[in-house]
Amino acid sequence: MVNAAAADTGIDALQTPALLLDLAKVRANAARMSARARSLGVSLRPHLKTAKSAPVARILTEGWSGAIMVSTLAEAEYFFSEGFSDILYGVGVTPSKFERIAGLATRGRFGVLVDSLETAKALVDYSSSSPLRLDVHIEIDADGHRGGVAPQSQLLLDIGARLTQARDLTLRGVLTHAGEAYNARGTTALERCAAGERDAVVNAAVRLTKAGHQCESVSLGSTPTAMFARDLSGVTELRAGVFAFGDLVQAELGACAIEDIALGVLTTVIGHQPGAGRVIVDAGWLALSGDRGTADFPHDWHYGAVADPLGRQVQVDVTVKRANQEHGLIEAREGILDVSRFPLGSRVRILPNHACATAAAFDTYAVHDGNEVVAFWPRKNGW
Amino acid sequence: MVNAAAADTGIDALQTPALLLDLAKVRANAARMSARARSLGVSLRPHLKTAKSAPVARILTEGWSGAIMVSTLAEAEYFFSEGFSDILYGVGVTPSKFERIAGLATRGRFGVLVDSLETAKALVDYSSSSPLRLDVHIEIDADGHRGGVAPQSQLLLDIGARLTQARDLTLRGVLTHAGEAYNARGTTALERCAAGERDAVVNAAVRLTKAGHQCESVSLGSTPTAMFARDLSGVTELRAGVFAFGDLVQAELGACAIEDIALGVLTTVIGHQPGAGRVIVDAGWLALSGDRGTADFPHDWHYGAVADPLGRQVQVDVTVKRANQEHGLIEAREGILDVSRFPLGSRVRILPNHACATAAAFDTYAVHDGNEVVAFWPRKNGW
Repeated sequence: MVNAAAADTGIDALQTPALLLDLAKVRANAARMSARARSLGVSLRPHLKTAKSAPVARILTEGWSGAIMVSTLAEAEYFFSEGFSDILYGVGVTPSKFERIAGLATRGRFGVLVDSLETAKALVDYSSSSPLRLDVHIEIDADGHRGGVAPQSQLLLDIGARLTQARDLTLRGVLTHAGEAYNARGTTALERCAAGERDAVVNAAVRLTKAGHQCESVSLGSTPTAMFARDLSGVTELRAGVFAFGDLVQAELGACAIEDIALGVLTTVIGHQPGAGRVIVDAGWLALSGDRGTADFPHDWHYGAVADPLGRQVQVDVTVKRANQEHGLIEAREGILDVSRFPLGSRVRILPNHACATAAAFDTYAVHDGNEVVAFWPRKNGW
Repeated sequence: MVNAAAADTGIDALQTPALLLDLAKVRANAARMSARARSLGVSLRPHLKTAKSAPVARILTEGWSGAIMVSTLAEAEYFFSEGFSDILYGVGVTPSKFERIAGLATRGRFGVLVDSLETAKALVDYSSSSPLRLDVHIEIDADGHRGGVAPQSQLLLDIGARLTQARDLTLRGVLTHAGEAYNARGTTALERCAAGERDAVVNAAVRLTKAGHQCESVSLGSTPTAMFARDLSGVTELRAGVFAFGDLVQAELGACAIEDIALGVLTTVIGHQPGAGRVIVDAGWLALSGDRGTADFPHDWHYGAVADPLGRQVQVDVTVKRANQEHGLIEAREGILDVSRFPLGSRVRILPNHACATAAAFDTYAVHDGNEVVAFWPRKNGW
């Protein structure tokens, strides 16, 4: 995992903007979620949509079977190449992707999800003419957030019945994601989201089983519901992704502490506008992402929180208040910033609102242990 | 420019999400801006921060000297490799980048901008110990948008005087960008921005010249001010980038028509929620960008406008109303969408709010002439 070429390089030698990843924090975040899954009596399938990196996936799956979830077929291809052998693709499939999916299904255990009779029928038809040894999970709608079938619907049973008509397809189970948890505020509301997510997927599993169908996997998750769930009876698998890095949205939700945030963008002060109380850094919305995920929380961090290069000394009175493509504008929350606090040429680390979005602009993590860069890890972007 | 491997491929055969670029529209957009620069009596230096692609840069510089502007040093390296020989880097420099800049300066005419005495001094000091044949432009603040020195300031003259102390540095001129034009609404306000941008940079040039300094280049621009400028007397060079592709923000500003938008994301319908009136496509905020640039305009297009795969038949009653990482949710602006309008497996093109942001998630353009994909063009992402 450690790239020898990076040895003896300090953070100071990096060109900016650079995507920093604190190795100790990633390990601690992974250990915390692993312990949580164990205490809840479920297995952990990390979602790699945030990290998109095999070395990170190895840390997150330590002590588990190695099962992972991905958000693109490009990730699936990459992780099979990196030796992972149980991969679930978390976006609904469509016939124009069946050929690529069939290729992936020859490389290990590969799963997809469906939430319509039409797609289930298309998969069954495809598998009758081409070999397609595939796991299929039925997506359950827990909270009206996005897709999925209602747990109490006839459609659930109809899809189950349709899928079992194909010899090579395995109806592996049911799966949900309580995305509306991101709109919940406070412990009680988040615990209610987690309970609703569990009830939806467990009810669906019970109904499928009673109808005579296999339902080995009962899977749910998001980082906030994982952290606020009190009881996962009936569930077999927990999925989560952003916990690996943490971010300001997770911190505002209470799903991590600000000190747990492993990801950050190292940036250099390139300009001062003393009259306006403005410090200009060489990380704009392209490096930081335009994600304004904390806009609706009590602490709006604008385009990111300002810390020292190691992520310490988070400044509460200033933020990256505005961002152009390659310029971030650090200003005081109130009043006029004394720009001498951030000398020209000095460096700060910007903590991200949303780790998935911020990491996406980079193809490499500069992995550090304190001031030392110990590795450069790749990311598999694209589709 | 045309990749033979792409011949005989139709748009229908592309995996989604894919970044589409309409070749005829790019050419028309380039011709329109070229004509505009000629009619205003200035030369055109296209800004490649939007396209980041040599084949696009060749179209945009047709009939001009080939001078371009870039937003990252990675772009500068790429475009020198592609044969461009006059490149201006549009982000303020800092000593940790001087070595890389010195390398670039050996590959052609290379320019940087400064807006502080401290950076000017650092550049002069560096050039006294290392060879550094570099153009330096002084950045002028036209509207308080970001950085730059005030045109009427003593600082402008002090920086000019400092830069002329170095034998190898060439003070090439002054440069500004009226970024506040994006906050202007209506022809009168935009014309006022364009006039203010011109006045700022011309006043700075006059003061520098009167003080005995060289000021060969008097440069300004943004796509909206370029389209709304009525008189650029005293200006030598116009810079703009997003005009090449157009987007919904430019259309809302009146700087292009919605039919001029060359860029789009091809996406497939992967889900239906008939009760919610929701159509789910396989392009979320990662492919579309999270940029909500039209939020403050009369027509808020949410995460993008929905059109047919060739960009025709723009639907005015629906938008990509919400977006998750890999899911876009098409819903009606008002009421419940009849999801049968967008059958499962069918494809639509999403027109972007902000072309620079949407293109950034991709490393390749699928360039098309009608339904035919005529080339795959690369993008140089990263820093």
